[in-house]
Amino acid sequence: MQRTRHGQTRRSFLRAVGVTGGAGTMFAAMGALGLAPAEATAATPPFRPLSPADFHLTGRSAASVVILGGGIAGLVSAYELGKAGYRCTILEPRDRTGGRNFTVRGGTAQTDLFGNKQVARFSEGQYLNAGPARLAQWMVTLDYCRELGVPIEVFTNVNADAYIYNESSGMKPGHPMRYRTAKADVYGYVSELLAKATGSGALDAELTGDDRAALLSFLEDWGQIGGKSDGYAYKGGTNRGFSAYPGAAGQPGTPLGSVPDVSDVFASAVGRYFSFEFEYDQAMLMFQPVGGMDQIPRALTRAIGAGKVKLGCAASRLVQRPDGVTVHYTDAAGRQKTLDADYCIAAMPPHLLAGLPHNLGDDVQTALRAITPASASKIGLEYRSRWWETDHRIYGGITETDLDLTHVWHPSHGFHERRGVIVGYYNYDETADKYGKMTPRQRQDRAVALGERIYGAKYRTELASSFSQSWRYIPHIEGAWHNLPGWTPDAPVLKPLTAPTGRVLYAGDWLSYMDAWQHGAILSARQAVTALHTRALAH
Amino acid sequence: MQRTRHGQTRRSFLRAVGVTGGAGTMFAAMGALGLAPAEATAATPPFRPLSPADFHLTGRSAASVVILGGGIAGLVSAYELGKAGYRCTILEPRDRTGGRNFTVRGGTAQTDLFGNKQVARFSEGQYLNAGPARLAQWMVTLDYCRELGVPIEVFTNVNADAYIYNESSGMKPGHPMRYRTAKADVYGYVSELLAKATGSGALDAELTGDDRAALLSFLEDWGQIGGKSDGYAYKGGTNRGFSAYPGAAGQPGTPLGSVPDVSDVFASAVGRYFSFEFEYDQAMLMFQPVGGMDQIPRALTRAIGAGKVKLGCAASRLVQRPDGVTVHYTDAAGRQKTLDADYCIAAMPPHLLAGLPHNLGDDVQTALRAITPASASKIGLEYRSRWWETDHRIYGGITETDLDLTHVWHPSHGFHERRGVIVGYYNYDETADKYGKMTPRQRQDRAVALGERIYGAKYRTELASSFSQSWRYIPHIEGAWHNLPGWTPDAPVLKPLTAPTGRVLYAGDWLSYMDAWQHGAILSARQAVTALHTRALAH
Repeated sequence: MQRTRHGQTRRSFLRAVGVTGGAGTMFAAMGALGLAPAEATAATPPFRPLSPADFHLTGRSAASVVILGGGIAGLVSAYELGKAGYRCTILEPRDRTGGRNFTVRGGTAQTDLFGNKQVARFSEGQYLNAGPARLAQWMVTLDYCRELGVPIEVFTNVNADAYIYNESSGMKPGHPMRYRTAKADVYGYVSELLAKATGSGALDAELTGDDRAALLSFLEDWGQIGGKSDGYAYKGGTNRGFSAYPGAAGQPGTPLGSVPDVSDVFASAVGRYFSFEFEYDQAMLMFQPVGGMDQIPRALTRAIGAGKVKLGCAASRLVQRPDGVTVHYTDAAGRQKTLDADYCIAAMPPHLLAGLPHNLGDDVQTALRAITPASASKIGLEYRSRWWETDHRIYGGITETDLDLTHVWHPSHGFHERRGVIVGYYNYDETADKYGKMTPRQRQDRAVALGERIYGAKYRTELASSFSQSWRYIPHIEGAWHNLPGWTPDAPVLKPLTAPTGRVLYAGDWLSYMDAWQHGAILSARQAVTALHTRALAH
Repeated sequence: MQRTRHGQTRRSFLRAVGVTGGAGTMFAAMGALGLAPAEATAATPPFRPLSPADFHLTGRSAASVVILGGGIAGLVSAYELGKAGYRCTILEPRDRTGGRNFTVRGGTAQTDLFGNKQVARFSEGQYLNAGPARLAQWMVTLDYCRELGVPIEVFTNVNADAYIYNESSGMKPGHPMRYRTAKADVYGYVSELLAKATGSGALDAELTGDDRAALLSFLEDWGQIGGKSDGYAYKGGTNRGFSAYPGAAGQPGTPLGSVPDVSDVFASAVGRYFSFEFEYDQAMLMFQPVGGMDQIPRALTRAIGAGKVKLGCAASRLVQRPDGVTVHYTDAAGRQKTLDADYCIAAMPPHLLAGLPHNLGDDVQTALRAITPASASKIGLEYRSRWWETDHRIYGGITETDLDLTHVWHPSHGFHERRGVIVGYYNYDETADKYGKMTPRQRQDRAVALGERIYGAKYRTELASSFSQSWRYIPHIEGAWHNLPGWTPDAPVLKPLTAPTGRVLYAGDWLSYMDAWQHGAILSARQAVTALHTRALAH
């Protein structure tokens, strides 16, 4: 999800891990060309679902578990424990489950830490996924969609007809560039330059004659460049797109002209957006639940049994006892209550857990304090017409900008319908904090003023309403995701959180290598569930 | 649609046209960076829909029109003429409208020219789009979907997790490569080589110091290569994918290892598939009607009025008279009939029109004879389970092969449902003819035997049924698309077809620059409709 320093750092880390990974050695032995067997290439870490039968040999019955937080990790913990008959109670301080998996529809109300209250006025069928919004094919989240009967559809993460808009490199309002044009030019010049270097002998130490022939053949096709006799020159081509697309007789089409020179192309920095679509967690095809991401927590909540989920209940103290745990909490009516259970899974944001009085020990507290929250912010802009389809011929996908909007998302569903919600900005870090500190009206004003530069007048005139939020300032969550020490849940300081503290266990995307993804929350929950069950069977 | 010599030739042609195009000059003046205004970059050739009001000044009433062929060009002609009150009759020899826009469902029957009769046994909700199957965002076809209320969804034309399977470069059965891995390796080595050449000064004549810095920055990110101190080496990376994806604590993930060397990567020829996804008519996002491509002709037929469409009616003679046209035809009951009308639009396959007795003159006949049909072939394989999703984590997209299957398509809809239809082959030219000459059973046997090499045993064991066809051998159509002289409808020999022959006009994708696309058929039909209306108002 991250396109920040964080993401870059995590990628570098993972690459380093891969070099020394144990399983890598096995796969390295599997022959030339980097081929692992098809059935093994998308493996999820092993997990054996629990079953009531697990207790038959022990004579024990399932224990009680209190779960702090009804986000994805908490819900999956209760769901998986429920399969073996554990008696789970989820305490969730918000008025809904899902945590950051939060879909805003007409009527959704939320008040931030500054006291800004918004009630979304989106029309029927329109929504904003304020938190997670996309699922990669290999992610375990899809398995839960299948198991729970949540239908999915394509999330339009990449679109050749979406725009790139970099004002810092000289693009002018009303003149964004389409992805397909930017890509044709970058790949065209990369091909021309590499073909020239290859042809001039500069790479003879690196490449055999066969290599050079194969490479040139690839470059000529891929980059739409001329052949040797043309000096491998890139002069544009149909991949850039057309000002008038080919039609009937007399209408051969007009390819977009005015090919920029090589200096302009690399100075424009359009290429910096291209690696996104190859990343292991972002490459298309990506998916989303039909009707909003919160179909997942809704289905989990139904499967767990709504009676086991106590909404509006904020924990105020966690006490570990030799034979169980006691959680003090305030219920939805403001009454102080306690709940005893055999075990506890703390599936809260770690920096908020650190603020909860507890007797889990200094090492746990030090670990929790080592994790810091990160910021991200979105605005949903509902429009009265889908002018981006009719006027811009953009059906979904993401427009990348160097404005502080960062990303602008076109909706992935409802094509050709009357209305639609554009994500007017999705940004991080200081930028997200800046927007978070504005009033909702100020956020809308800025989002529209900047978006208008890209898309023109209808970005303002067709607007129906908006809903915006910055996760850092949302009560009971206060962060979009988390920064781990060394970007790894296996950092030594976090050790106390990756194993049970007596009868208390921890779960969340923040305890995984896929922070900010439900995949990470789910696998962390599975790990906690397995550890809890192992301990329960042993004691 | 074409990935054949034809497509390559057409692209080259269009590029040449672009260089000299009139509108190109205008756009060339629009400044650096190749930017045309957003609102102009996806223009469809202008078309003014007809209106009954057009007749007010002339005092005339709308004429009668007989349309030969109920494919997309014929249907759009009748639909658009109907808006002004023309009395249209479509004569369609098949038992359905749509022509090559043909969706096969359970119960669909078809007998080919060899006498092979198939009745599809697909289950409820399953289908094969035997003809066109995808729509680009800029295509006018989408405007008809909007106007006619045909819902659309994403067509999964490109998928990082789909496979590439090239046996000729040494890939072994059961060991395909994922697109994402192939792309990471090709782009990685392209980056390494170009970075080395740049760093060594080999491109100093081409690039300024700023260019070199910008280029290296792009390559390091895009190719996941090392920096200068690492010699810009490509050593794999997370973009290749993982044998075990990152998960919870203790599960950092295992990036796919065994990075092939540069010679193996370029010798493997995986890169030859990459340009497809940048092409102006194939780049994602692509779309399809929900429920089958034939929702378009069905909606057009309803809008025209089913009573105006005579199915099972094959024209046997076309006679142009000074004041109208007479079409002799055989009706569905085998009776010889005639139909008189003021005008005729011939929207039949041109090589079949050439075989129809007519008095349109030698120039018309010479033009028709100059157009030859091309071949393409598909098989739909219905499976009892969606093993490609569960076992391979492939949700849609196309697997490319160097087997004679050519392309294998995963379904773009019904994710996570019980069954699905894979397009087991989509191939062209001699290969399509070869499959077309087999019995349906032989085609299925070959498709399964080859597909099993890529996907393993379930490709055989989970198969429920199949339906296959080769357009060259389908009665009344006899071609997948057409080869035009010089690949242009504006070739001098075709001149007699691009203007009315008296009261007869011509329409079809084959008279456009977008042959094999409905976009071409529609724009050709609009052109014929405009010409007919202009003439009708003038006479």
